[in-house]
Amino acid sequence: MTTSSAPRETHRTLLADFEARRPAALARAVSIVENHRAGFEQLLGALHPRLGRARRIGITGPPGAGKSTITTTLASLYRSAGLTAGIIAVDPTSPFTGGALLGDRIRMEAVALDEGIFIRSMATRGSLGGLAAGTREVADVLDGYGFDRILIETVGVGQSELDIARTADTTVVVLVPESGDSVQAMKAGLMEIADVFVVNKADRPDAERLRHEIEMTLGLRLGGSTMRNVPAHHGVDLKTLRNPAHAARKQAQNDSAGTWTPPVLATIADRGEGIEALAAALDRHFDYLSRSGMLEARRRERLRERVVEAVERRMRQRLWGDAEIAAWVDAQLPALEAGTLTPFAVADTLLARNAGRLTQ
Amino acid sequence: MTTSSAPRETHRTLLADFEARRPAALARAVSIVENHRAGFEQLLGALHPRLGRARRIGITGPPGAGKSTITTTLASLYRSAGLTAGIIAVDPTSPFTGGALLGDRIRMEAVALDEGIFIRSMATRGSLGGLAAGTREVADVLDGYGFDRILIETVGVGQSELDIARTADTTVVVLVPESGDSVQAMKAGLMEIADVFVVNKADRPDAERLRHEIEMTLGLRLGGSTMRNVPAHHGVDLKTLRNPAHAARKQAQNDSAGTWTPPVLATIADRGEGIEALAAALDRHFDYLSRSGMLEARRRERLRERVVEAVERRMRQRLWGDAEIAAWVDAQLPALEAGTLTPFAVADTLLARNAGRLTQ
Repeated sequence: MTTSSAPRETHRTLLADFEARRPAALARAVSIVENHRAGFEQLLGALHPRLGRARRIGITGPPGAGKSTITTTLASLYRSAGLTAGIIAVDPTSPFTGGALLGDRIRMEAVALDEGIFIRSMATRGSLGGLAAGTREVADVLDGYGFDRILIETVGVGQSELDIARTADTTVVVLVPESGDSVQAMKAGLMEIADVFVVNKADRPDAERLRHEIEMTLGLRLGGSTMRNVPAHHGVDLKTLRNPAHAARKQAQNDSAGTWTPPVLATIADRGEGIEALAAALDRHFDYLSRSGMLEARRRERLRERVVEAVERRMRQRLWGDAEIAAWVDAQLPALEAGTLTPFAVADTLLARNAGRLTQ
Repeated sequence: MTTSSAPRETHRTLLADFEARRPAALARAVSIVENHRAGFEQLLGALHPRLGRARRIGITGPPGAGKSTITTTLASLYRSAGLTAGIIAVDPTSPFTGGALLGDRIRMEAVALDEGIFIRSMATRGSLGGLAAGTREVADVLDGYGFDRILIETVGVGQSELDIARTADTTVVVLVPESGDSVQAMKAGLMEIADVFVVNKADRPDAERLRHEIEMTLGLRLGGSTMRNVPAHHGVDLKTLRNPAHAARKQAQNDSAGTWTPPVLATIADRGEGIEALAAALDRHFDYLSRSGMLEARRRERLRERVVEAVERRMRQRLWGDAEIAAWVDAQLPALEAGTLTPFAVADTLLARNAGRLTQ
């Protein structure tokens, strides 16, 4: 993957425009990085020293939970506080990426006209080198451009989507009273990734019950009257209920300064209710991350992942981008089909034959 | 990744037991492969010549669509026809993997007691080398053991889950009338992967409308009275509606022998209704795959993927399993954090320094 001098020249102009904070340069830089076009590594490399200013906030949850409304409303709130916000939507149900209801569309266009807000939707399919890596790279561009907040909206059901959430400093999980099935579906992953829970559409029936359920699953509110109000079959973690020691430990963690138990907030995002409280919780979580050393740890982990991805991408390109190797693999297919060769034997031969190409 | 002689010996005994079709050997083989324990490649390699007998059927759809009931009922139907069936569940909402309703549990235990049925649930998280690859490898074990049908149940919302569906010969997408949001969410992916659609819980209101919607999105039933019955905002692909030429082409494809347009079936899986029609559609699709050469093409593609995965796994193991390399990467972190080194420069150096290890 060598870059000819022509794209490198373009890239230098682009970088100058980017540094002058020209919106068109931002859009082009994002496209180059998102599509891994020639020069994308040089571009990301040039931005690398500037990373780390932005706070990255992942917003995830099942379809229909109101993630887009929360994302847009939060971005507007940041704008009114004088901050800029970049939005990356990797959610097929989002108005940024998919079909929008009229209200969503209007709200979105209102924020999209603001120069302090940038919106980019990412294709969820066929992403080069993985969706999580691609999302982080686009976030890097926005970070390098100087956005104060980067909001990453993703539907939180599948594995890849949960991986995306992990690229953020803080992850918000949005649920709605009617998403009972999804809570069940996502529970294992949810409890692991959520830094802040939001129960949206909090004016609907059962919203309060959902909040109780989440808090109980988190090991809070134990031994009180709330236990009787929540039917045990409805998504409550019985292990937690039956293990007071575990619950007490969780509670103790919550009381001490050095740990974080996810708050469970209520919002009615359509009316903007609860969004300020959400922004405040995000600030508190960021403070917690900074004070505890977790921010540094999470960002170090992301740096390590960037190295791993760059190495693996090089290896994949050098092997699978090589027409000779592709033809050689094709030539092994008849023996593989006949069962006289195994994929593992073919892999060994392939690596032995192509040692030189891997580290060219 | 060298295997010492001790596990190789165990592996030989295991293989003999496996060939004698001892259920305990099957369960052990699946565990070894699923967890990539020592000897798993030798085991898969030994089974490789026997692959290709089983028909692999992916069953996907949103949480609550009834995938497990359909899977179980289909497996029972196959049993009563004298066929054996292996079930792989990678769905966190499945009774095989997650919390089951009483009815599901009883149905599942009924089939699990049958020696002609094998059920394995796969963890959706932290799977080594990717969930899709892991699922295919477990399917390979079941195929090598001699199961006639392999049913792979997976929640079809995220990217990884759709990837899993692609490891099957035939993919069934299960929807229910109330999964409107999910249809919207999955539409792009769905139309691409579905070989057969099932509208389950077909006795519910709006079931017929959902069937019409899917068929219209597939480009069928155009220009008739059904168009007026379906509100355009409700998940219908307007592009298809407005492009009669495209619709006519789709219809023509459906009429010709050499192509396949996914049928949209109705089931009430709880009562077993429609399952025979589903099994018949699966047989028709398999015939279509065989006649058209698509079966060979899909299976060749899977062989190619097995080679790619084996190569990439070796490279990952050789690099990231090496303590010296890990320590070296850690030593670069301060410079990466300071921005004086980029991940790409570190990747280049890493590859240059470790050329020998990659092809050892």
